[in-house]
Amino acid sequence: MFRSKEFSSVLALVLALQLSGQGKMATFQLEKTVLLVLLLVQVCAIHAVSADSDSLEKYVDSLPEKNELTSTPNKHSTIFKDAEKLVKEDTNGTTAPNTTVTVVTSAATEATSKSHQLEEKHSSFTIFFILLVLAFCIITTHLLIITKFHYLPESVAVVIVGGIIGGVIKILSSHDLVDLHEEEAFPPTIFFLVILPPIIFESGYNLHKGNFFANFGTILIFAVFGTLISACVVGGGIYLLGVAKVAYPLDLLESFAFGSLISAVDPVATLAIFQALDVDAILYMLVFGESVLNDAVSIVLTNTILAMRRPEMADVSGAVAFFHGVGHFCLMFAASSAIGIASAVLSSVTFKLFDLRKTPSLEIALMLIFSYIPYGLAEGVGLSGIMAVLFAGIVMSHYTHRNLSPITQITVQQTFRTVAFMAETCVFAYLGMSIFSMYHHVKVSFVLWAIALCLVGRALNIFPLSFMANKFRIHKITPKQQFIMWFSGLRGAIAFALSLHIDMEKEKRQVLVTATLIIVLFTLLFLGGGTMPLMTILNRKKTRTKKKKELNLSKTKEMGDTVETTSEHTEAEEIRTVKPHVSKFMSLDQKYLIPWLTRIITAQEVREGQRQMATLTDKWYKEVSQRSTTEESEEDDLQTLISGNSEP
Amino acid sequence: MFRSKEFSSVLALVLALQLSGQGKMATFQLEKTVLLVLLLVQVCAIHAVSADSDSLEKYVDSLPEKNELTSTPNKHSTIFKDAEKLVKEDTNGTTAPNTTVTVVTSAATEATSKSHQLEEKHSSFTIFFILLVLAFCIITTHLLIITKFHYLPESVAVVIVGGIIGGVIKILSSHDLVDLHEEEAFPPTIFFLVILPPIIFESGYNLHKGNFFANFGTILIFAVFGTLISACVVGGGIYLLGVAKVAYPLDLLESFAFGSLISAVDPVATLAIFQALDVDAILYMLVFGESVLNDAVSIVLTNTILAMRRPEMADVSGAVAFFHGVGHFCLMFAASSAIGIASAVLSSVTFKLFDLRKTPSLEIALMLIFSYIPYGLAEGVGLSGIMAVLFAGIVMSHYTHRNLSPITQITVQQTFRTVAFMAETCVFAYLGMSIFSMYHHVKVSFVLWAIALCLVGRALNIFPLSFMANKFRIHKITPKQQFIMWFSGLRGAIAFALSLHIDMEKEKRQVLVTATLIIVLFTLLFLGGGTMPLMTILNRKKTRTKKKKELNLSKTKEMGDTVETTSEHTEAEEIRTVKPHVSKFMSLDQKYLIPWLTRIITAQEVREGQRQMATLTDKWYKEVSQRSTTEESEEDDLQTLISGNSEP
Repeated sequence: MFRSKEFSSVLALVLALQLSGQGKMATFQLEKTVLLVLLLVQVCAIHAVSADSDSLEKYVDSLPEKNELTSTPNKHSTIFKDAEKLVKEDTNGTTAPNTTVTVVTSAATEATSKSHQLEEKHSSFTIFFILLVLAFCIITTHLLIITKFHYLPESVAVVIVGGIIGGVIKILSSHDLVDLHEEEAFPPTIFFLVILPPIIFESGYNLHKGNFFANFGTILIFAVFGTLISACVVGGGIYLLGVAKVAYPLDLLESFAFGSLISAVDPVATLAIFQALDVDAILYMLVFGESVLNDAVSIVLTNTILAMRRPEMADVSGAVAFFHGVGHFCLMFAASSAIGIASAVLSSVTFKLFDLRKTPSLEIALMLIFSYIPYGLAEGVGLSGIMAVLFAGIVMSHYTHRNLSPITQITVQQTFRTVAFMAETCVFAYLGMSIFSMYHHVKVSFVLWAIALCLVGRALNIFPLSFMANKFRIHKITPKQQFIMWFSGLRGAIAFALSLHIDMEKEKRQVLVTATLIIVLFTLLFLGGGTMPLMTILNRKKTRTKKKKELNLSKTKEMGDTVETTSEHTEAEEIRTVKPHVSKFMSLDQKYLIPWLTRIITAQEVREGQRQMATLTDKWYKEVSQRSTTEESEEDDLQTLISGNSEP
Repeated sequence: MFRSKEFSSVLALVLALQLSGQGKMATFQLEKTVLLVLLLVQVCAIHAVSADSDSLEKYVDSLPEKNELTSTPNKHSTIFKDAEKLVKEDTNGTTAPNTTVTVVTSAATEATSKSHQLEEKHSSFTIFFILLVLAFCIITTHLLIITKFHYLPESVAVVIVGGIIGGVIKILSSHDLVDLHEEEAFPPTIFFLVILPPIIFESGYNLHKGNFFANFGTILIFAVFGTLISACVVGGGIYLLGVAKVAYPLDLLESFAFGSLISAVDPVATLAIFQALDVDAILYMLVFGESVLNDAVSIVLTNTILAMRRPEMADVSGAVAFFHGVGHFCLMFAASSAIGIASAVLSSVTFKLFDLRKTPSLEIALMLIFSYIPYGLAEGVGLSGIMAVLFAGIVMSHYTHRNLSPITQITVQQTFRTVAFMAETCVFAYLGMSIFSMYHHVKVSFVLWAIALCLVGRALNIFPLSFMANKFRIHKITPKQQFIMWFSGLRGAIAFALSLHIDMEKEKRQVLVTATLIIVLFTLLFLGGGTMPLMTILNRKKTRTKKKKELNLSKTKEMGDTVETTSEHTEAEEIRTVKPHVSKFMSLDQKYLIPWLTRIITAQEVREGQRQMATLTDKWYKEVSQRSTTEESEEDDLQTLISGNSEP
């Protein structure tokens, strides 16, 4: 419809796609028109001003020293880093190293100033583009929820939207109509520094701690040994197939690096499928716990294997390297979680010591800072940030959360959820877009074998380990549950980001990145999309003793319905089934840790909290009623509600 | 106390400084000890693992190709950008430009992979350090509020904390104990892309629209002509002093660029002082409105003047250049605010069209996206993002806010406030730290003359323009108010960021950056710190007709006390004093725009909103009571409260 008007811009096209997909949303023709007109205004603005900006760019191009200027700061920052290292190595020197560094820095800043303006403009537009894609994905998610089309998981829908946007950009840019190079927009560094921490923190923060720790042993077995088995199966299989010249050949360490990066089940993708399924809480927790912990395992494993490729490791034997790897892994695991727990305890003590309840802005700000600090510290010192932030989330929701004012509890939880949701959506949209935007190097046999090995690896992980775990468990894992666990081994963004991260020769890397992308998309689309039919089949066989719960693949709806905090009820219920050490910890926790780390809330404070919330709620009613008065609708009804509320 | 234990780490030292400053916070000795122990654990972790990471870095250094590898991606990205431009210029070509770009990109990604790991580690640590500084500043702010030490504005306190941290780092790094190069951490690009948008959006969102638009004419006069006068006085003065060889010589355009960047009164600094003073609403709005709008004026003016230095502008006469500048400015102003308003209206229509109330995560996410989109778009096409985001904030708080669910209204407002607060704190802390961390080139006479010219420029701006404005105003600006307006001309972060941004030869740039920093600190510390005594003197003279309001320089406390939305009451009150066109717009707004852009809230929806809020509040009470039950305190009291609330 827009092509006929000669506005062949990507925005308009994508919008048209979106609107045509609405279907069930009818009637609001007026608003729809406004939406279109306004988007056209924005598109026109881009076109109109791009003439101006083009002239600027041409001017910059015409400058002969332009290339030098753009590259100079980079060179200087290299020099700067070298200088930094020189300073570091010269730890015993008595010369003042500052002068060198300062001079180099100032030279660097000097040269940077010119390119800042252009860089800023470029970054702004990139951010604008990302936000626009995000907005489309959010609306798609919303439409999925309201049309109750539950057979398509949200994550898959977002991947598809991303794919469509990527495809449209590809078509338009091949016809030279736009030049959005979104491949630049999402380097792995951004993924690991900005996207991943909120997702993991949020899953830690909203974790059902009772079930998680009651099953901690089993989860740990699946996460650590399961991932190891899967990594060995995939890595070994890929290596042997390469030697046998059946698939693309990789050397031993490369094979195992690939095996370990592809072995992690993705929490984002898995949660999206599992959170709403009619499975019992234990099975849900097993799959969720495994997916959260094995990210860390996979990241650590991949990095450990890649670290073995260093020259100084070349002369050690396989067994030594293996034990070195195990030691490294254990150290990582322990130190990272220690940082996370220490930082969470610090946050709890800080909130107990400084009463920030009167100033919600300060409280929320400090809470946000404490949610990121463990990641920054752990990554900064070379440990696993994901592990640190997961444990920080778990511990903070148990202690720190209790020290917050009610308004902050709500805001912080909503904010964490929203940020995690946005980060997840970003990831899936990018996965979809990268189908078209990246340069791919497809080795069909390699990809097919890798998929087969992934499925076999997960089977060899789930079934034997379940068998073993059942020997020790009171609550056994049934064969059907095992089958679901095997089937739901979705790979996701973390595997993809890790594959972008690995350092190999160009061609091999491209093959691996492409293979990873295809495997991720395969598991998302087929295993993720196939979960619903599978559940239907399994449910048909099952005698329906429980009250029928509507199957729902929307994670967001589930999250949005009620804002649930960590309820103590269910934790208490679980105590009888848990092992003695867990219940021991829980009584210890009730006796010493909770009183010591959390603030005692006096009746006075409860009253203040109630007043604070009542003020907020009342204000909303008053605003609504004022508007309704002018609109002359249901006035009396509202007045009753307000008076009913303001006298609690 | 830590030095004796040989832990001469910066973290511990800063902590010690913080704790010794607590003074009035006593008794919690146990928690304090835990705080120290935990921080020591973190410090130890850094020390322990830094050995490991050092070896990694040494290994990387030992690689001969390391330097090449680090610089290669940069070179490649330059090539990439060039390729991009080639593609752009070749708009009529029939060759498929994608292939080139893709090949170059993949080559670039190939080479980047190795340096990613180190870059990530470095960035993580930088983020950790920034967050740590922020946390200290937040606690300082909190201590300022609870100790009721109102004579020190929060912004000044944060600058001082920043200065202390910067000084400690300087001392430690000169003794070669740490190497935190925070000068890298805050490039102007980050300031303009991350720090500034939330501050300006928040001030637009929480603006008192009635007073703002009632005084819009006067505000615009101060913001545009006032800033122009000040820029001319400072610029002309600096140029003439340079010609007369009294101060550091700058050429004409450089002088005026400096004049315009230093002329903008900073909203962040001004708000921190003004928001809690016992001045009437009109004066407050005049100063606030001026400070918000003249940022945009100053940024546009500076960029326009710098644009005139381009070669193609060299052959035009002064008058043509002047009119070109005026035209450019008007276009900027109109187009930027149009983008902001269009985007806000789009957001309002989107929220009306798609009912996201059931899924707060989606709602909040979309709201956050819409708050940034105008900035990204405007900056991306070369317009003023600050202007766009200001108007978007104003319009969104008027229309979009009404379409949100109560929980989202609260969360979004708290989140905007918190993010803006964190951004402001970042800015002031950085200003403080840059006293020590940057390389300074102080020209004493230049700085002194510049300060004098700033004061004179502001006097020549405020007094004549107030005289002129009073001719048209019903509500006159009294001489005392004019004096306060003159005195409160604080310069802030925007001026400093602009000075880092300008492109000049190295020495001149350093002189200007240093001068700007000193002027900013001078106005913050002396004018900002002197406001309280000045107000006391003025208040002593004044007959105390009004009920005495406690003087309070804490902006955060003011913000935190009540969460205020845009109340209709005061807007209605103002109608009688406003000019006819404003009241005309307001009736138009009530009749057409509000019904058309906002959703009609049915009694059903109000009940749902009430239920949603009640659920949240109840849950909090239940949690609190459960804890209290185990602690056996005030049980009955709480039970009464809960039952009282759950039956509204």
